[in-house]
Amino acid sequence: MGVVVDLDGEREKKPSLDALVALTGEDIKKVNQLIVDNMQSPVALIPQLAAHIVAAGGKRMRPMLTLAAARLCGYQGERHLGLAACVEFIHTATLLHDDVVDESDLRRGKPSANAIWDNKACVLVGDFLFSRSFELMVADGSLEVLAILSNASAVIAEGEVHQLMTANDTETSETAYLEVIEGKTAKLFAAAARIGAVVAERPKVEEEALDAYGMNLGVAFQIIDDALDYSAKQAELGKTIGDDFREGKITLPVILAFRRGNDEERTFWRRTLENLDQTDDDLAHAMELLKKHKALNDTFDRARHYGAIARDALGIFDDSPEKAALIEAIDFCIERAY
Amino acid sequence: MGVVVDLDGEREKKPSLDALVALTGEDIKKVNQLIVDNMQSPVALIPQLAAHIVAAGGKRMRPMLTLAAARLCGYQGERHLGLAACVEFIHTATLLHDDVVDESDLRRGKPSANAIWDNKACVLVGDFLFSRSFELMVADGSLEVLAILSNASAVIAEGEVHQLMTANDTETSETAYLEVIEGKTAKLFAAAARIGAVVAERPKVEEEALDAYGMNLGVAFQIIDDALDYSAKQAELGKTIGDDFREGKITLPVILAFRRGNDEERTFWRRTLENLDQTDDDLAHAMELLKKHKALNDTFDRARHYGAIARDALGIFDDSPEKAALIEAIDFCIERAY
Repeated sequence: MGVVVDLDGEREKKPSLDALVALTGEDIKKVNQLIVDNMQSPVALIPQLAAHIVAAGGKRMRPMLTLAAARLCGYQGERHLGLAACVEFIHTATLLHDDVVDESDLRRGKPSANAIWDNKACVLVGDFLFSRSFELMVADGSLEVLAILSNASAVIAEGEVHQLMTANDTETSETAYLEVIEGKTAKLFAAAARIGAVVAERPKVEEEALDAYGMNLGVAFQIIDDALDYSAKQAELGKTIGDDFREGKITLPVILAFRRGNDEERTFWRRTLENLDQTDDDLAHAMELLKKHKALNDTFDRARHYGAIARDALGIFDDSPEKAALIEAIDFCIERAY
Repeated sequence: MGVVVDLDGEREKKPSLDALVALTGEDIKKVNQLIVDNMQSPVALIPQLAAHIVAAGGKRMRPMLTLAAARLCGYQGERHLGLAACVEFIHTATLLHDDVVDESDLRRGKPSANAIWDNKACVLVGDFLFSRSFELMVADGSLEVLAILSNASAVIAEGEVHQLMTANDTETSETAYLEVIEGKTAKLFAAAARIGAVVAERPKVEEEALDAYGMNLGVAFQIIDDALDYSAKQAELGKTIGDDFREGKITLPVILAFRRGNDEERTFWRRTLENLDQTDDDLAHAMELLKKHKALNDTFDRARHYGAIARDALGIFDDSPEKAALIEAIDFCIERAY
């Protein structure tokens, strides 16, 4: 197990999620099985989606956080498996609901974000996942876990409504941006990590440490995710860039460049992001402006700041392979930008 | 209080919800206040919706069931208030999510079902209500209530997905139709009534009686709701009819007429409801076919059957104003058709 990372000096290799994946691999298999078992239904669309989730996978960051946090806290039981499935259900429900397309988007003739499920199916299957997640939590029987995850769900939804209300507003402040990403992304990271300490029945201080780890990791993760949409490195790797730009999403690189820009530049940002009046050359010009104002570099610095807080939050735990893997996950989230 | 209804002979007046409204009126005011209090948020859209819910009102059948069931069981506390708010939150979330419009609908150029909120706002505010409902339940602290309402939510979502999958299929059986309405409507009526017995800490047999009452009342309610869409009486009263027909919804009157019809008639139903290829005269023709096959009359008879089961389910309770009001609610749900 374990992975050789020299935290104080030069890295021997690029940070990755490999250690976290290796440590949680056996548990993740069981979580996958729980996901499939709990989406049995005579209504075919529901198990089809379960198969899709398990097959598609993704990084599975959130359930891995629950699993690794529980083990970090010395937990030896099985409850963390069902709760990791709950966390993944909530995350998947959120993704499905994010894919719901507005009438205005359709009027603009954009394709649906989700090619397989139409709007109504996305909503209803999301609702099913969300409800099933609460059924699983009730079966687990911890009111404390229920309180953490129902609160996280409400904060996520509130954050998403907030984002909707402030969409396409170039005046959005860095503070408002942080509030939105804390709600829509970081809160579930925090809850996922925290319930690891809850099942292990550890003192509040450890719960809070894992909550702070997850919250700050989540903020760093989302900041980098948003930055990657403008990353020349991503473009080199053949990955799509500019999706957020085309949708007029106000993310940290844009917030920094807008505030540092002159009148002409602000007119450009308003035309492209508020009015969504864009030409083919606009993305390239946007990336030039980000470069001019060092907006991407400073966005990465902001992410590093939250990463540092996440790392220090784990300081109260003794060294262990789990702790090392959780710390490497921070480095991975940030350094994948390079 | 109380209302004079001679259950065995002629009615002195048309059954109404007046008795139920009078009995629960003071409690409903407190529930309204809880709804507003629990939707405070810096995100303006959320309290706006709370005001909208309280102002719009509707019949408030579901929270009234919780309130009246709790009192029927002799409950003297306050917990039923918060739980009635939970039930209303779940119901409102479901309504908001029902209003989400499919891309296909938009392509057909139909207006949104909801003029105030667009798709994305409907979904996200619904998610917030749903999450807040679980937070309130967690604060109440009963794992039994949480189990009942999380299960109801999952069944509702499953029923809605089921309905989506079988939409516009004229071959839908009466059994499949019943499964759908049990899921999408009756299950929440059942859960709403049942938790009245749970807060009152009554024996399982009373919980089950209230569950059966709610389930059968909900089925009767939905059957009549579906029938009213084709009711000449409704048309006389100036209410819209034919909405379900235009959407190609397969409801009980149509299921009966389709099965009793000849080949030419089935071709008509397939053209209008499956292919949604309709002319202005088609609704009138559909209503003629329903009349020819006594489909509406027999639909009302089906509803009466479930109403009778609901009434008998309450047989184990001693007579009281609450019992009389809950029984009159059955009669109201059915006889509003005339």
